[in-house]
Amino acid sequence: MPKLYDLEPSGNCYKVRLMCAVLGVPLDIVPVDFMAGAHKKSPLIDMNPFGEIPIFVDGDVVLRDSQAILVYLARKWGGESWLPSEPAKMAEVVEWLMVAENEIARGPNDARLHDKFGYKLDVAAAREKAARILGLMNTHLSKTQWLALGRPTIADIACAPYVAMSYEGGISLEPYPAVSAWLDRIKSIPGFVPFPA
Amino acid sequence: MPKLYDLEPSGNCYKVRLMCAVLGVPLDIVPVDFMAGAHKKSPLIDMNPFGEIPIFVDGDVVLRDSQAILVYLARKWGGESWLPSEPAKMAEVVEWLMVAENEIARGPNDARLHDKFGYKLDVAAAREKAARILGLMNTHLSKTQWLALGRPTIADIACAPYVAMSYEGGISLEPYPAVSAWLDRIKSIPGFVPFPA
Repeated sequence: MPKLYDLEPSGNCYKVRLMCAVLGVPLDIVPVDFMAGAHKKSPLIDMNPFGEIPIFVDGDVVLRDSQAILVYLARKWGGESWLPSEPAKMAEVVEWLMVAENEIARGPNDARLHDKFGYKLDVAAAREKAARILGLMNTHLSKTQWLALGRPTIADIACAPYVAMSYEGGISLEPYPAVSAWLDRIKSIPGFVPFPA
Repeated sequence: MPKLYDLEPSGNCYKVRLMCAVLGVPLDIVPVDFMAGAHKKSPLIDMNPFGEIPIFVDGDVVLRDSQAILVYLARKWGGESWLPSEPAKMAEVVEWLMVAENEIARGPNDARLHDKFGYKLDVAAAREKAARILGLMNTHLSKTQWLALGRPTIADIACAPYVAMSYEGGISLEPYPAVSAWLDRIKSIPGFVPFPA
C-alpha cells in the first residue's frame, strides 16, 4: 500500500489524500510530528532533502512535491482521465499545476500561512497576488466548468484546496462567484473528502 | 511552424528556444515589445490572460507557462527521452519542473529581476531562497550528472537558465561547484544555444 507522510491541515498533503480517495487507491497515512520538526530530521530528511511534507512512498518510488505526486497517481491509476498523455491535453493540465505551485502558493496559501500559522511574510503582497489569481480564475471559470479540458483533472485537485481555504488567510471568495461554483462542483466529485479547514 | 512570442533576455522564453533547438523543431520567433506592454494588450492578452510571455502557438494549441510548453514539446517531439510517460519517471522530472516554477523563480530569478530590471521586491529574501535551492541542487548534483533519471530531461532545461544567470542577481556559483559542472554538461548537449545573459 502506498504511504503518505502527512500533516492534516496541510493543503498539499490533502491533495494527495483527495486524489487517492477519488481514485480508490488505499493509502497508509503516517502523521508527521511537524511541531517537533520531524520533517527536518532523519529518516524523513533522507527521503526528502527539501525538508518538507508531503512525502509519498510506493515501493521503490519516493516523491516530494504535491503536484508531482498528483502526476504519479493520475498516470499510474487514472488511465487517461486525470492527466491525459496527448501532448496538448497534458500541457493544458500542467499549466494549472504551475498555477498551484506559483500563483496560488504565493497568494492564498501564503496569506493562510501568515494568518493561521504565524509565518513571517509579506501578507499584503500575498493578498494582492491572491486577488490577481482569483480574478483570473473567476474569469476563466465563468466560461468553463473545470480548469482544464472541460472535465475534472488533477488541475482542479491541485488548485482547489488553498483556494477553498482562502478565508483562513483573510480572503473572501464573495467577489469570485464562478470560483465558488467551481468549488461546489469539486465537492460533488465521487470520493470527495472535506477540505481540511 | 510553431510560433513563440518572445523576449530575448527572458529565461522562460529562452527555455522554449533551447528545447526547440535541441529537438530540431523549427520555431517562428516573434519579438514582443515588452517595454510598450504589448503582452498586456490585445491580441497577446487574449492568448494569455495572465499578461505574460512566453506564449507558444502550434496550430490550434496556445500555451502559456514555460514549464507547460516544455511538457508539450517533449511529449510531441521528444519521444520517451525528455519526459518519459512511465509514471515514476514522469513524476521525477515533474518534481524539478516544480523547482523551476517555485524555488528557482523565487530565488535566483527574483534576485535578477531586482538587480537587472529594477523590480521592487524583497531581494534579501530572494538571495536567501537562492542560497537554499543552490545548496540543495549542489548536494544532489554531487551524486548525479543530471537532475532526473541520470540523463538530460526537461528538468535540466527548466532549471538551468535562471541558475546560469544567477550572477546577474548578485549571486556567485563559486560555493556550488557541482552546479557549475552541471551547467557545463548542459552546454555540451547537441543543439545547445547560449544562455541569454
